[in-house]
Amino acid sequence: MGNCSQGCKDYFSRQKNTNIRLTLPVVCFVWQIAMIILFGVFIRYDEESDTHWVETKAHDNITSDIENDFYFRYPSFQDVHVMIFVGFGFLMTFLKRYSFGAVGFNFLIASFGLQWALLMQGWFHSLDPQTGKIFIGVESLINADFCVAGCLIAYGAVLGKVSPVQLLVMTLFGVTLFAVEEYIILNLLHARDAGGSMVIHTFGGYYGLAISRVLYRPNLHQSKRMQGSVYHSDTFAMIGTLFLWMFWPSFNSAITDHGDGQHRAVINTYLCLASTVLTTVAISSLSQKTGKLDMVHIQNSTLAGGVALGTAAEFMISPYGALIVGFFCGIISTMGYIFISPFLEKTLKIQDTCGIHNLHAMPGVIGGIVGAITAAAASESVYGKQGLINTFDFTGDFKDRTVLTQGGYQAAGMCVSIVFGVVGGAIVGSILKLPIWGDPADENCFDDEVYWESIKLLHCTDHTEDISHK
Amino acid sequence: MGNCSQGCKDYFSRQKNTNIRLTLPVVCFVWQIAMIILFGVFIRYDEESDTHWVETKAHDNITSDIENDFYFRYPSFQDVHVMIFVGFGFLMTFLKRYSFGAVGFNFLIASFGLQWALLMQGWFHSLDPQTGKIFIGVESLINADFCVAGCLIAYGAVLGKVSPVQLLVMTLFGVTLFAVEEYIILNLLHARDAGGSMVIHTFGGYYGLAISRVLYRPNLHQSKRMQGSVYHSDTFAMIGTLFLWMFWPSFNSAITDHGDGQHRAVINTYLCLASTVLTTVAISSLSQKTGKLDMVHIQNSTLAGGVALGTAAEFMISPYGALIVGFFCGIISTMGYIFISPFLEKTLKIQDTCGIHNLHAMPGVIGGIVGAITAAAASESVYGKQGLINTFDFTGDFKDRTVLTQGGYQAAGMCVSIVFGVVGGAIVGSILKLPIWGDPADENCFDDEVYWESIKLLHCTDHTEDISHK
Amino acid sequence: MGNCSQGCKDYFSRQKNTNIRLTLPVVCFVWQIAMIILFGVFIRYDEESDTHWVETKAHDNITSDIENDFYFRYPSFQDVHVMIFVGFGFLMTFLKRYSFGAVGFNFLIASFGLQWALLMQGWFHSLDPQTGKIFIGVESLINADFCVAGCLIAYGAVLGKVSPVQLLVMTLFGVTLFAVEEYIILNLLHARDAGGSMVIHTFGGYYGLAISRVLYRPNLHQSKRMQGSVYHSDTFAMIGTLFLWMFWPSFNSAITDHGDGQHRAVINTYLCLASTVLTTVAISSLSQKTGKLDMVHIQNSTLAGGVALGTAAEFMISPYGALIVGFFCGIISTMGYIFISPFLEKTLKIQDTCGIHNLHAMPGVIGGIVGAITAAAASESVYGKQGLINTFDFTGDFKDRTVLTQGGYQAAGMCVSIVFGVVGGAIVGSILKLPIWGDPADENCFDDEVYWESIKLLHCTDHTEDISHK
Repeated sequence: MGNCSQGCKDYFSRQKNTNIRLTLPVVCFVWQIAMIILFGVFIRYDEESDTHWVETKAHDNITSDIENDFYFRYPSFQDVHVMIFVGFGFLMTFLKRYSFGAVGFNFLIASFGLQWALLMQGWFHSLDPQTGKIFIGVESLINADFCVAGCLIAYGAVLGKVSPVQLLVMTLFGVTLFAVEEYIILNLLHARDAGGSMVIHTFGGYYGLAISRVLYRPNLHQSKRMQGSVYHSDTFAMIGTLFLWMFWPSFNSAITDHGDGQHRAVINTYLCLASTVLTTVAISSLSQKTGKLDMVHIQNSTLAGGVALGTAAEFMISPYGALIVGFFCGIISTMGYIFISPFLEKTLKIQDTCGIHNLHAMPGVIGGIVGAITAAAASESVYGKQGLINTFDFTGDFKDRTVLTQGGYQAAGMCVSIVFGVVGGAIVGSILKLPIWGDPADENCFDDEVYWESIKLLHCTDHTEDISHK
Repeated sequence: MGNCSQGCKDYFSRQKNTNIRLTLPVVCFVWQIAMIILFGVFIRYDEESDTHWVETKAHDNITSDIENDFYFRYPSFQDVHVMIFVGFGFLMTFLKRYSFGAVGFNFLIASFGLQWALLMQGWFHSLDPQTGKIFIGVESLINADFCVAGCLIAYGAVLGKVSPVQLLVMTLFGVTLFAVEEYIILNLLHARDAGGSMVIHTFGGYYGLAISRVLYRPNLHQSKRMQGSVYHSDTFAMIGTLFLWMFWPSFNSAITDHGDGQHRAVINTYLCLASTVLTTVAISSLSQKTGKLDMVHIQNSTLAGGVALGTAAEFMISPYGALIVGFFCGIISTMGYIFISPFLEKTLKIQDTCGIHNLHAMPGVIGGIVGAITAAAASESVYGKQGLINTFDFTGDFKDRTVLTQGGYQAAGMCVSIVFGVVGGAIVGSILKLPIWGDPADENCFDDEVYWESIKLLHCTDHTEDISHK
Repeated sequence: MGNCSQGCKDYFSRQKNTNIRLTLPVVCFVWQIAMIILFGVFIRYDEESDTHWVETKAHDNITSDIENDFYFRYPSFQDVHVMIFVGFGFLMTFLKRYSFGAVGFNFLIASFGLQWALLMQGWFHSLDPQTGKIFIGVESLINADFCVAGCLIAYGAVLGKVSPVQLLVMTLFGVTLFAVEEYIILNLLHARDAGGSMVIHTFGGYYGLAISRVLYRPNLHQSKRMQGSVYHSDTFAMIGTLFLWMFWPSFNSAITDHGDGQHRAVINTYLCLASTVLTTVAISSLSQKTGKLDMVHIQNSTLAGGVALGTAAEFMISPYGALIVGFFCGIISTMGYIFISPFLEKTLKIQDTCGIHNLHAMPGVIGGIVGAITAAAASESVYGKQGLINTFDFTGDFKDRTVLTQGGYQAAGMCVSIVFGVVGGAIVGSILKLPIWGDPADENCFDDEVYWESIKLLHCTDHTEDISHK
């Protein structure tokens, strides 16, 4: 028993080998081939993207091509797509020597994840019982991107500490868990969560934090020289921040109801995010002796308002309500970076590279609570009779649900997302602890050289204008 | 008297203190709370973003959700939003050590400004007399972004020389002045200015130049080593240039008439900007002994065509007319950088960091003139009877206005925007001269270290490929 | 005879003179003035962008402004516009010292090219026989951007080795050739090629490669120290890669049929590109001893799937079909970088700076073949009777064409694009060989200093955190 435990320990702590020449290509090829086969069996164009659309139009008395869902959702879809690849990718380039890993691995796992998401979400949400097929259209693509967002959030917690193979495994399980919790929250509990405060951010945040906890590295200080940012890497990260910030209104409105639903979600998110910026700056300035600002806060906490309005963006929260949510999120998120992150690392042994706890997990929970309260407080006088039914989808099995009950189910939904994140993350973390995935040694963390060829820094002795001596 | 004047002088020239730990958080908190209260009192969703839309649709016989104004304007809005935050923000990152200030403070003041703009523009343009409320929709968001643009232009003149608190004050007054001059120009004079040559660019340009004049720093040469760009900062700035350039057609068409109005404004702006690029390159090359190009010109003057077509973009200026405007704007703007900017600094003591005189003020005035001439030259044979009425909105009180009169009012509008810019800027500049705002000393201008924590430059001695010795 | 040949040789190999102070401004001015005159003679607004639209609407019984083609195509147009200026521009910034040339010259030639393209494409495709005018709308702008893309692809092959004057000449002829081959392929052969696998990528690729062959520089190794990338230049290039990748669905769908055509093209391209990323990563990792990834592959080969689906994106290739195309393109393109590019340079003396053979030429040919096969395999059972007619435009003169015949014409179209590329490129290359264009000497290739003023690299000895010693 002692021997076995010693053996296990040896097995897990053996010299790290970051050679992924076998595992990475095998995983990529096998999984991609699996995708092709599964798509062949299950995935078909939906009626709005099929050449039979001309017949559908005639049959449904649709007078113009412009009423194809494509034209309602495509601009939002493209914005979401930019958030996933440029937004998340560049936000993580802040580390001085991990820009390739940030953008490149983000690119890889998102590309795999969206395929797997189309299948998983299709099986749970839109499998046609008669044909056994999944019919996809532009809304499916948006949902796939959303699902991937959950995994990219989780990547933020382990940035620089894992191999691309681990990230792919994390994405495989992450998308799977996502589809299940999403099914429970949106379909069974019938909670509303158009921008995914609960489904995406709370789940993704806790999923990443739990994995990071399991993969705790007590000697991470050995790569301390690679942590932190340099001037230009922080500027690159601002590209990510701004594209996330600007397009968040599209994120929260992408799959809301046509017409006023999308319109209102955009207005609310736009206002909420503006408010967040001011309180983030205020707290950041307060936190330094001379009132200087910290780039980490500006890059991250300014986005917390968008996260927190994910559930309520489509509700009649009213413009000033959106401002209030943003107001508090900026404060809480920035304080999270100042006080809670160090606490998490020291006490709970959670090493959270990008601070996703402050940007996604906490604001996600706030968003869930705001959603539950605003749902419970909804009234026919504010929404109108039909408006209330449309907004909360009180139809079919749920036509007799009251707003108070709805508020309760919203709260229940949030608990589900936390549980899935924590438990799922703990299990997946244990799998990722196996010493077969090619993760880097503690002293090689946060360094692109481990997984990228021929990295050259900028040459600097020639043609340089010396700032200090002129 | 002498003592007093000496005392005043001492008061104004005392040692600069850039500690903004008190002022910045206080301004952010108090103003944001004021916004929340005012939004609570005044701002509501308009009928297209309210859950009662379903009833509005039925009442107005609207057959499809796609006729919600959201679908006409949202893609343009998102492009404008990108111009405001990425476009303006990154355009100003060209300074070697002021990228954080450029992108970060731009982010801050735009986020405050758009909230204040919704209120100010609402009070002047869309306050409902019966309910006392302002009803907002996607067009309001675009107008708020437009209003903010005026202040961001002004920021370009004082980039690197002011504190974030000063910028917030400048934005507060700038938005206020903007709303008033916009009301006079668009409502009272009934001038047309969809892309804001006069309202946005002329006003914003002169507002910034006047402020810069009042804040003149005779010893600015002390920070000379921080002025100018480095290779990578110029590349970052090109991100700003290109997003402004590419999305300018959306800017000029965002609030023009549905249908042909938006369509035509896009075509005109697209062509005008293309033409500007060629003449900018030509003049830039001519200005150097060996025909080399100057990045400053390419980054800025290529955009002048978009500015100058702000008024006339929606008119039947015809494709070759748009090319001609662009042709001359590229020449004039580039020559501005070569000849006029040095003159302004030396003779008029206007230190214009980004050259907004060449990019916004002058092309804005050109745009106003082009607008006046093309309006005065409009004819029923070209526009069609109804087309003429639609384009110039000859309805209601203005239904008997002739195109010649319209041309006159257009010219009057331009004068209003100049006066508001110059006078408003002079007054606001005097306020900003008070030594309480935490602005930097002359030798600390253009340096992010004053307002940003822990700035690290790129490490360079390790892993470097030496360009010169291989 | 010997003397003459010697004289010629001397003439061609005389000392390079990169002074373009005469040629560049003259070309810019003269050509821009020519554009203005030709636009004045030929170009007019089409009925959807003219103020008479209100009459057109009434006449054609169009009930809503939203049915203006503008609203179907403008979001896609803006995405394509971003691809042209930011996508292509930044993709080429990977060289350590040629970022200005990459972004700046790309900007210049695209701005000229799109004007010339509007004329050339107008004369060939939409000259109104009655009025002798070309009527333009948003679809014309998209087509002009497409046409420019062909020339920007060709720029990739000669990046760093030519002067801006040469690039303008290359663009003038490139656009001209493009319009002719496009006319032959789309109108005469009636092949379908919405995303331009053949018309844009195959033509552009071979056009550039042929030019590069003619301009072969045996002593290019003299500028070896300037070839290759540095850390930050590779990160800049990823901005280009990602915006191309994200917006490729818009590229392939921008001019497809309203409704299901655009919808389906987006889905196919989205899936195909996701698949390409995984196989690119797999092959890249396989190519290195320890499985490290190569930034060159990630930047370029990940895009090959979009190229290869240019023809078939609008067909019913089915989701798994799209994945299969992407699967093989990632493999082939990455292997191209590893094996074929060195071979081309060594054996065929084609110096291909950006590897456009692997990213555009080869995948373009694959796309042509895929298009021919999927067209030939189309059936009424899959497409529906009307769907088949709509997709392949079997109307008018072509109403009796069978899918098999269509497949044949598709294949013929691909041959046309290759021939135009190779022959056209060889001729234009010979013109560019004249020693009057100001191209750089071998040792000055890939260096911005030749054509750009005052380039300063980042200062590095001060305020540096030393990565290696902390």
